[in-house]
Amino acid sequence: MVALAQSQQTSQAHPDFSRVKALVFDTFGTVVDWRTSVTQQVQELATRKGLKIDAVKFADTWRSGYQPAMSRVRTGELPWTKLDRLHRMILDKLLVDFGIAGRLSESEVDALNHVWHRLRPWPDSVSGLTRLKKKFIIAPLSNGNISLMTDLAKFGGLPWDCILGAELARHYKPDREVYQSAADFLDLKLDEVMMVAAHLGDLGAAKGVGLRTAFVTRPMEFGPDGKPDLQPNASVDIAARDFNDLAIKLGA
Amino acid sequence: MVALAQSQQTSQAHPDFSRVKALVFDTFGTVVDWRTSVTQQVQELATRKGLKIDAVKFADTWRSGYQPAMSRVRTGELPWTKLDRLHRMILDKLLVDFGIAGRLSESEVDALNHVWHRLRPWPDSVSGLTRLKKKFIIAPLSNGNISLMTDLAKFGGLPWDCILGAELARHYKPDREVYQSAADFLDLKLDEVMMVAAHLGDLGAAKGVGLRTAFVTRPMEFGPDGKPDLQPNASVDIAARDFNDLAIKLGA
Repeated sequence: MVALAQSQQTSQAHPDFSRVKALVFDTFGTVVDWRTSVTQQVQELATRKGLKIDAVKFADTWRSGYQPAMSRVRTGELPWTKLDRLHRMILDKLLVDFGIAGRLSESEVDALNHVWHRLRPWPDSVSGLTRLKKKFIIAPLSNGNISLMTDLAKFGGLPWDCILGAELARHYKPDREVYQSAADFLDLKLDEVMMVAAHLGDLGAAKGVGLRTAFVTRPMEFGPDGKPDLQPNASVDIAARDFNDLAIKLGA
Repeated sequence: MVALAQSQQTSQAHPDFSRVKALVFDTFGTVVDWRTSVTQQVQELATRKGLKIDAVKFADTWRSGYQPAMSRVRTGELPWTKLDRLHRMILDKLLVDFGIAGRLSESEVDALNHVWHRLRPWPDSVSGLTRLKKKFIIAPLSNGNISLMTDLAKFGGLPWDCILGAELARHYKPDREVYQSAADFLDLKLDEVMMVAAHLGDLGAAKGVGLRTAFVTRPMEFGPDGKPDLQPNASVDIAARDFNDLAIKLGA
């Protein structure tokens, strides 16, 4: 890929990406730090209610239920179900497994489920997006539902131009329909849209559909003992340290 | 309605609207001045190409094809069709009727069709929306497709939190599905969503579904000889001169 990009080098700064008009972003992990945010809010609730739980383990276990829950929708075992509802289904089991079912009221459980609407952006996210927005359409292409993404944007000051993603396509990533829908809704060709993510699986699926791909690293997404993707692979068109670095590399 | 609001008066400033969490906006005419914008851009094209056409009449005739075109979708004569495509179908006939078919290249006709992506906001729109955004979720609920609304927002600096509307519901207003979809996508109850429009027909349909309604007047939408809605009727919960006045009345 690097060799290909270099072979196309002209007087333009970034010839390989000159057609790109929109950047679409994975959000959990790529734009926002879900793990620290969920852990802190679970810990605060535990302290307030006098619950003895390992908040880090609670956050990690909740997140680990995410892919299996979406698989139930992908396989048709469940009809189309918003991520908020999947989060709640996982949470209900989690409360039993952590021995705190019955210690929270329905409104407390509902508020807890909405911690996913209050996730802090990574330090470079807002400044990088603001810069990228001057040159490109920017939109999340997340598995989070519209109300979740809207709340996240208001909470963190994310300056999206519009919100795209799974709920509009009624498919979860990495189903190809989600990536295709971004181009369709924006009325762009596939190679005019670039997927930005910290996860190679997401980028591989986007690339397979025909989108351009940008890889940013988020070394702390899964904590100090995590195993994040750190090295680009063949599905990556451009790699950047963070969103500001991406802005520089895309001439924004 | 005034009597009802007064009878519910409490120590709160706006008791009748205390549940409202999101404002959704009609856009053509309510947020942006389509007539002046389209007229100017048509005139510029005509001057550049040496075409003799009445640009005001061209803009008005184009707009007058809007309701009949959407009706063809509503009745099922056409399958779901984006507004950009309906605008183009109307335009193609217009070029013949105005005697300029064949005087423009395909790319010029396509660019002309995209004048609807470059409409100037009314003078109070950006400041009013910016103020309202601090208290409410704000989103367009327009018949315009997502790419059109996204371009309009970038062109005019409209600070939407997300983009809702006809393309997400695959129905055109005033079909009830569009109004219902706003509450569904935002995960809100119907009376937590307020429709803002300069058109009583839009507000009547929104009210019929259960949304709250705000009427703003746009006296010049149809030009000096136009017949805009200027007086609220029974479907109006709150009336305001413009978006800043609405912000004051809603305590934003």
